[in-house]
Amino acid sequence: MKRIAIDMDDVLADTSLKIIDQVNLRLNKNYNHADLLESDALKLAFYQDYQFDNQFLWEPGFFLDIAVKEDAVEVVKQLQEKYEVFIVSAATEFPESMKEKLIWLEEHFPFIGWQHTVFCGHKHMIQADFLIDDHEKNLVSFTGKPILYSALHNLHIHDYERVSTWKEVSQLFL
Amino acid sequence: MKRIAIDMDDVLADTSLKIIDQVNLRLNKNYNHADLLESDALKLAFYQDYQFDNQFLWEPGFFLDIAVKEDAVEVVKQLQEKYEVFIVSAATEFPESMKEKLIWLEEHFPFIGWQHTVFCGHKHMIQADFLIDDHEKNLVSFTGKPILYSALHNLHIHDYERVSTWKEVSQLFL
Repeated sequence: MKRIAIDMDDVLADTSLKIIDQVNLRLNKNYNHADLLESDALKLAFYQDYQFDNQFLWEPGFFLDIAVKEDAVEVVKQLQEKYEVFIVSAATEFPESMKEKLIWLEEHFPFIGWQHTVFCGHKHMIQADFLIDDHEKNLVSFTGKPILYSALHNLHIHDYERVSTWKEVSQLFL
Repeated sequence: MKRIAIDMDDVLADTSLKIIDQVNLRLNKNYNHADLLESDALKLAFYQDYQFDNQFLWEPGFFLDIAVKEDAVEVVKQLQEKYEVFIVSAATEFPESMKEKLIWLEEHFPFIGWQHTVFCGHKHMIQADFLIDDHEKNLVSFTGKPILYSALHNLHIHDYERVSTWKEVSQLFL
């Protein structure tokens, strides 16, 4: 059975949407995802604001209530019938996040379980046939086939096979 | 640079000693490590007691104050000069443990860092040249060279290269 490693933030979870909300709330801004997709200048301003105040990532609760990406639950469930599925999340930088991520996974993806959940820093010690991830730094050293999941911050990258929805993941693997 | 994955409980940390303390405390027993090493019958009684009440593993604080194994800090520091060292702990079963394990590592092994710390359930997706672990279930599916670190619960296993102290780890790798 081939093994697929799947990232959480901005792959299973719509983390960017929550980050935009938090930046708006804390810095009294009015960014929205659709506008950010349209304008590099706006995106630059947003990322500067985000870097200026991203402490919310370390605060208790941040990772608990992030929205699930459309179709992710159904497709991951189907993938599990044909592949060994691991969730691999770069989470050890955020000590509060891991318990919250386990609760979140148990709520939305109860069929995965702690046995197939991995929290790490670097991902280059992960052995799998495929890695679906939104960060080039994780894909570049991966020894299997890397798949880039589209996110606001990676649209300029053209070196990887790309998916933008879970329907596309389904078409690729099922 | 070759990669060594190192387990935490009963490899870096003297977890069995704390477990014996907790079983004694909760069930009003008087086990000690030296006696358990000497008698299989006593070991059997101990493990039955441990299975009867091991909820303390899930309680906040359990993993915070476990003793470090003798020479572990010095040897891991030396290993880091010649190898890429990852700490790989089967911790996702214990949601409270991961933050505590990060604090414990930062206290005793601050030179490792969250980037090289992995918390997982199964370990068979870990890619490394060596894995030092006390559990056969982790070693059996490992694709590199497995090294069994002696613990109360694995003395009957003879299928792996074995180390019993960090001095022996040093002799093997340095």
